[in-house]
Amino acid sequence: MAKNKAYGTEKDCLRSMCPVSSVLDIVGDKWTILVVRDMLLLGKRLYSELIDSPENIPTNILADRLKRLEAAGVIEKQPYQDKPVRYEYRLTQKGEDLRPLIKELAVWGNKYIEGTMVPPEGFMDKPYQP
Amino acid sequence: MAKNKAYGTEKDCLRSMCPVSSVLDIVGDKWTILVVRDMLLLGKRLYSELIDSPENIPTNILADRLKRLEAAGVIEKQPYQDKPVRYEYRLTQKGEDLRPLIKELAVWGNKYIEGTMVPPEGFMDKPYQP
Repeated sequence: MAKNKAYGTEKDCLRSMCPVSSVLDIVGDKWTILVVRDMLLLGKRLYSELIDSPENIPTNILADRLKRLEAAGVIEKQPYQDKPVRYEYRLTQKGEDLRPLIKELAVWGNKYIEGTMVPPEGFMDKPYQP
Repeated sequence: MAKNKAYGTEKDCLRSMCPVSSVLDIVGDKWTILVVRDMLLLGKRLYSELIDSPENIPTNILADRLKRLEAAGVIEKQPYQDKPVRYEYRLTQKGEDLRPLIKELAVWGNKYIEGTMVPPEGFMDKPYQP
Protein backbone atom coordinates (compact mmCIF):
# COMPACT_ATOMS: atom_id res chain seq x y z
CA MET A 1 0.00 0.00 0.00
CA ALA A 2 1.34 3.41 -0.99
CA LYS A 3 2.66 5.39 1.93
CA ASN A 4 1.64 9.02 2.15
CA LYS A 5 3.89 10.82 4.62
CA ALA A 6 1.39 13.57 5.34
CA TYR A 7 -1.56 11.28 5.84
CA GLY A 8 -0.27 7.85 6.88
CA THR A 9 -1.18 4.86 4.74
CA GLU A 10 -3.90 5.15 2.13
CA LYS A 11 -6.20 3.03 4.24
CA ASP A 12 -6.03 5.51 7.12
CA CYS A 13 -7.66 8.20 5.00
CA LEU A 14 -10.30 6.16 3.21
CA ARG A 15 -13.86 6.92 4.31
CA SER A 16 -15.04 3.40 3.63
CA MET A 17 -13.89 0.33 1.70
CA CYS A 18 -16.21 1.16 -1.20
CA PRO A 19 -13.99 1.29 -4.31
CA VAL A 20 -15.88 4.33 -5.68
CA SER A 21 -15.52 6.35 -2.50
CA SER A 22 -11.89 5.28 -2.12
CA VAL A 23 -10.92 6.58 -5.55
CA LEU A 24 -12.64 9.87 -4.78
CA ASP A 25 -10.54 10.07 -1.63
CA ILE A 26 -7.54 10.29 -3.98
CA VAL A 27 -8.76 12.11 -7.10
CA GLY A 28 -12.16 13.49 -6.00
CA ASP A 29 -11.72 17.20 -6.48
CA LYS A 30 -11.93 19.69 -9.32
CA TRP A 31 -8.20 19.76 -10.12
CA THR A 32 -6.43 16.43 -9.68
CA ILE A 33 -7.87 14.77 -12.75
CA LEU A 34 -7.01 17.83 -14.85
CA VAL A 35 -3.33 17.36 -14.02
CA VAL A 36 -3.60 13.71 -15.08
CA ARG A 37 -5.53 14.77 -18.21
CA ASP A 38 -2.72 17.11 -19.27
CA MET A 39 -0.07 14.44 -18.77
CA LEU A 40 -2.11 11.67 -20.39
CA LEU A 41 -3.56 13.48 -23.39
CA LEU A 42 -1.17 16.37 -23.97
CA GLY A 43 2.09 14.75 -22.88
CA LYS A 44 2.92 17.47 -20.35
CA ARG A 45 5.78 16.61 -18.01
CA LEU A 46 7.08 19.88 -16.64
CA TYR A 47 5.66 22.12 -13.95
CA SER A 48 5.87 25.04 -16.39
CA GLU A 49 3.72 23.09 -18.87
CA LEU A 50 1.21 21.95 -16.28
CA ILE A 51 0.68 25.43 -14.88
CA ASP A 52 -0.28 26.59 -18.38
CA SER A 53 -3.84 25.23 -18.64
CA PRO A 54 -7.05 26.88 -19.87
CA GLU A 55 -8.52 26.40 -16.39
CA ASN A 56 -5.76 28.52 -14.81
CA ILE A 57 -4.85 26.10 -12.04
CA PRO A 58 -3.42 28.10 -9.12
CA THR A 59 0.24 27.35 -8.48
CA ASN A 60 -0.26 26.29 -4.85
CA ILE A 61 -2.96 23.82 -5.94
CA LEU A 62 -0.78 22.41 -8.72
CA ALA A 63 2.13 21.91 -6.31
CA ASP A 64 -0.16 20.23 -3.77
CA ARG A 65 -1.79 17.94 -6.33
CA LEU A 66 1.57 16.85 -7.77
CA LYS A 67 2.68 15.89 -4.25
CA ARG A 68 -0.52 13.96 -3.61
CA LEU A 69 -0.39 12.19 -6.98
CA GLU A 70 3.20 11.19 -6.31
CA ALA A 71 2.32 9.95 -2.80
CA ALA A 72 -0.54 7.93 -4.31
CA GLY A 73 1.78 6.36 -6.89
CA VAL A 74 -0.11 7.89 -9.84
CA ILE A 75 2.93 9.88 -11.03
CA GLU A 76 6.68 9.72 -10.55
CA LYS A 77 9.02 12.66 -10.19
CA GLN A 78 12.39 12.31 -11.88
CA PRO A 79 15.33 14.67 -12.26
CA TYR A 80 16.03 15.57 -15.88
CA GLN A 81 18.77 18.15 -15.29
CA ASP A 82 21.58 18.82 -12.76
CA LYS A 83 22.81 22.22 -11.56
CA PRO A 84 20.23 23.37 -10.89
CA VAL A 85 18.39 20.11 -10.52
CA ARG A 86 15.04 20.15 -12.33
CA TYR A 87 12.32 17.56 -12.25
CA GLU A 88 9.80 16.17 -14.63
CA TYR A 89 6.69 14.17 -13.86
CA ARG A 90 5.59 10.99 -15.56
CA LEU A 91 2.48 8.90 -15.19
CA THR A 92 2.97 5.43 -13.76
CA GLN A 93 0.88 2.50 -15.00
CA LYS A 94 -1.54 3.34 -12.18
CA GLY A 95 -1.85 6.82 -13.69
CA GLU A 96 -2.14 5.53 -17.27
CA ASP A 97 -4.99 3.35 -16.06
CA LEU A 98 -7.05 6.45 -15.27
CA ARG A 99 -7.57 6.82 -19.04
CA PRO A 100 -10.94 4.98 -19.18
CA LEU A 101 -12.24 7.16 -16.34
CA ILE A 102 -11.15 10.34 -18.13
CA LYS A 103 -12.76 9.08 -21.33
CA GLU A 104 -16.06 8.53 -19.54
CA LEU A 105 -15.89 12.05 -18.10
CA ALA A 106 -15.49 13.41 -21.63
CA VAL A 107 -18.29 11.25 -23.04
CA TRP A 108 -20.73 12.47 -20.40
CA GLY A 109 -19.56 16.07 -20.76
CA ASN A 110 -19.98 16.03 -24.52
CA LYS A 111 -23.41 14.47 -24.20
CA TYR A 112 -24.79 16.72 -21.51
CA ILE A 113 -22.85 19.97 -21.29
CA GLU A 114 -23.63 22.23 -24.19
CA GLY A 115 -20.71 23.72 -26.04
CA THR A 116 -17.98 21.44 -24.72
CA MET A 117 -15.26 20.62 -27.23
CA VAL A 118 -15.53 17.21 -28.86
CA PRO A 119 -12.11 15.54 -29.03
CA PRO A 120 -11.00 14.26 -32.44
CA GLU A 121 -11.68 10.56 -33.11
CA GLY A 122 -9.15 8.41 -31.26
CA PHE A 123 -7.62 11.36 -29.38
CA MET A 124 -8.52 9.96 -25.98
CA ASP A 125 -7.10 6.52 -26.74
CA LYS A 126 -3.58 7.25 -27.79
CA PRO A 127 -0.46 8.14 -25.88
CA TYR A 128 0.43 11.69 -26.78
CA GLN A 129 2.47 12.15 -29.96
CA PRO A 130 3.80 15.69 -30.34
CA MET B 1 -28.93 24.54 -20.79
CA ALA B 2 -29.81 23.80 -17.18
CA LYS B 3 -30.33 26.92 -15.12
CA ASN B 4 -28.72 27.02 -11.71
CA LYS B 5 -30.22 29.82 -9.65
CA ALA B 6 -27.25 30.20 -7.38
CA TYR B 7 -24.69 30.21 -10.15
CA GLY B 8 -26.40 31.40 -13.35
CA THR B 9 -26.26 29.08 -16.33
CA GLU B 10 -23.94 26.12 -16.37
CA LYS B 11 -21.70 27.84 -18.87
CA ASP B 12 -21.09 30.76 -16.47
CA CYS B 13 -19.40 28.46 -13.99
CA LEU B 14 -17.37 26.28 -16.33
CA ARG B 15 -13.63 26.84 -16.15
CA SER B 16 -13.09 25.95 -19.79
CA MET B 17 -14.95 24.18 -22.58
CA CYS B 18 -12.99 20.97 -22.00
CA PRO B 19 -15.59 18.24 -21.43
CA VAL B 20 -13.49 16.64 -18.67
CA SER B 21 -13.07 19.86 -16.73
CA SER B 22 -16.73 20.77 -17.27
CA VAL B 23 -17.98 17.54 -15.73
CA LEU B 24 -15.68 18.09 -12.75
CA ASP B 25 -17.25 21.53 -12.36
CA ILE B 26 -20.49 19.66 -11.60
CA VAL B 27 -19.49 16.42 -9.88
CA GLY B 28 -15.79 17.00 -9.05
CA ASP B 29 -15.76 16.66 -5.30
CA LYS B 30 -15.58 13.84 -2.76
CA TRP B 31 -19.33 13.61 -2.11
CA THR B 32 -21.50 14.27 -5.16
CA ILE B 33 -20.79 10.98 -6.92
CA LEU B 34 -21.48 9.08 -3.69
CA VAL B 35 -25.03 10.45 -3.64
CA VAL B 36 -25.46 9.33 -7.25
CA ARG B 37 -23.89 5.95 -6.38
CA ASP B 38 -26.43 5.35 -3.62
CA MET B 39 -29.36 6.21 -5.88
CA LEU B 40 -28.01 4.26 -8.85
CA LEU B 41 -26.76 1.10 -7.17
CA LEU B 42 -28.74 0.92 -3.95
CA GLY B 43 -32.03 2.48 -5.11
CA LYS B 44 -32.05 5.13 -2.39
CA ARG B 45 -34.63 7.87 -2.89
CA LEU B 46 -35.22 9.46 0.48
CA TYR B 47 -33.09 11.93 2.38
CA SER B 48 -33.22 9.59 5.38
CA GLU B 49 -31.78 6.79 3.23
CA LEU B 50 -29.12 8.95 1.64
CA ILE B 51 -27.86 10.31 4.95
CA ASP B 52 -27.27 6.72 6.07
CA SER B 53 -24.03 5.90 4.24
CA PRO B 54 -20.83 4.23 5.43
CA GLU B 55 -18.95 7.45 4.61
CA ASN B 56 -21.09 9.46 7.05
CA ILE B 57 -21.93 12.29 4.71
CA PRO B 58 -22.59 15.43 6.78
CA THR B 59 -26.21 16.60 6.56
CA ASN B 60 -25.34 20.08 5.29
CA ILE B 61 -23.23 18.57 2.51
CA LEU B 62 -25.98 16.14 1.52
CA ALA B 63 -28.55 18.95 1.38
CA ASP B 64 -26.19 21.09 -0.71
CA ARG B 65 -25.30 18.29 -3.13
CA LEU B 66 -28.97 17.37 -3.65
CA LYS B 67 -29.70 20.99 -4.58
CA ARG B 68 -26.75 21.11 -6.96
CA LEU B 69 -27.64 17.78 -8.58
CA GLU B 70 -31.21 18.98 -9.06
CA ALA B 71 -30.01 22.29 -10.53
CA ALA B 72 -27.74 20.35 -12.90
CA GLY B 73 -30.63 18.11 -14.01
CA VAL B 74 -28.99 14.94 -12.68
CA ILE B 75 -31.82 14.24 -10.23
CA GLU B 76 -35.46 15.29 -9.85
CA LYS B 77 -37.24 16.03 -6.61
CA GLN B 78 -40.85 14.86 -6.41
CA PRO B 79 -43.42 14.96 -3.62
CA TYR B 80 -44.50 11.48 -2.52
CA GLN B 81 -46.70 12.51 0.41
CA ASP B 82 -49.00 15.43 1.41
CA LYS B 83 -49.49 16.86 4.90
CA PRO B 84 -46.71 17.14 5.63
CA VAL B 85 -45.34 17.20 2.12
CA ARG B 86 -42.34 14.93 1.75
CA TYR B 87 -40.03 14.56 -1.22
CA GLU B 88 -38.14 11.79 -2.88
CA TYR B 89 -35.27 12.07 -5.33
CA ARG B 90 -34.93 10.18 -8.58
CA LEU B 91 -32.15 10.05 -11.11
CA THR B 92 -32.94 11.50 -14.52
CA GLN B 93 -31.52 9.91 -17.68
CA LYS B 94 -28.60 12.34 -17.30
CA GLY B 95 -28.01 10.86 -13.86
CA GLU B 96 -28.44 7.26 -15.05
CA ASP B 97 -25.81 8.00 -17.67
CA LEU B 98 -23.21 8.51 -14.93
CA ARG B 99 -23.19 4.71 -14.51
CA PRO B 100 -20.19 4.05 -16.82
CA LEU B 101 -18.19 6.67 -14.95
CA ILE B 102 -19.04 5.12 -11.58
CA LYS B 103 -18.12 1.69 -12.95
CA GLU B 104 -14.71 2.96 -14.03
CA LEU B 105 -14.14 4.46 -10.59
CA ALA B 106 -14.85 1.05 -9.06
CA VAL B 107 -12.64 -0.80 -11.55
CA TRP B 108 -9.68 1.46 -10.79
CA GLY B 109 -10.36 1.35 -7.06
CA ASN B 110 -10.49 -2.44 -7.02
CA LYS B 111 -7.32 -2.67 -9.08
CA TYR B 112 -5.23 -0.18 -7.14
CA ILE B 113 -6.61 0.36 -3.66
CA GLU B 114 -5.93 -2.59 -1.43
CA GLY B 115 -8.84 -3.97 0.51
CA THR B 116 -11.67 -2.28 -1.39
CA MET B 117 -14.82 -4.36 -1.69
CA VAL B 118 -15.29 -6.07 -5.04
CA PRO B 119 -18.91 -5.73 -6.20
CA PRO B 120 -20.72 -8.95 -7.17
CA GLU B 121 -20.72 -9.78 -10.89
CA GLY B 122 -23.23 -7.59 -12.72
CA PHE B 123 -24.00 -5.47 -9.64
CA MET B 124 -22.83 -2.25 -11.28
CA ASP B 125 -24.85 -2.84 -14.45
CA LYS B 126 -28.34 -3.35 -13.19
CA PRO B 127 -30.97 -0.96 -11.93
CA TYR B 128 -31.45 -1.69 -8.25
CA GLN B 129 -33.90 -4.48 -7.41
CA PRO B 130 -34.79 -4.57 -3.74
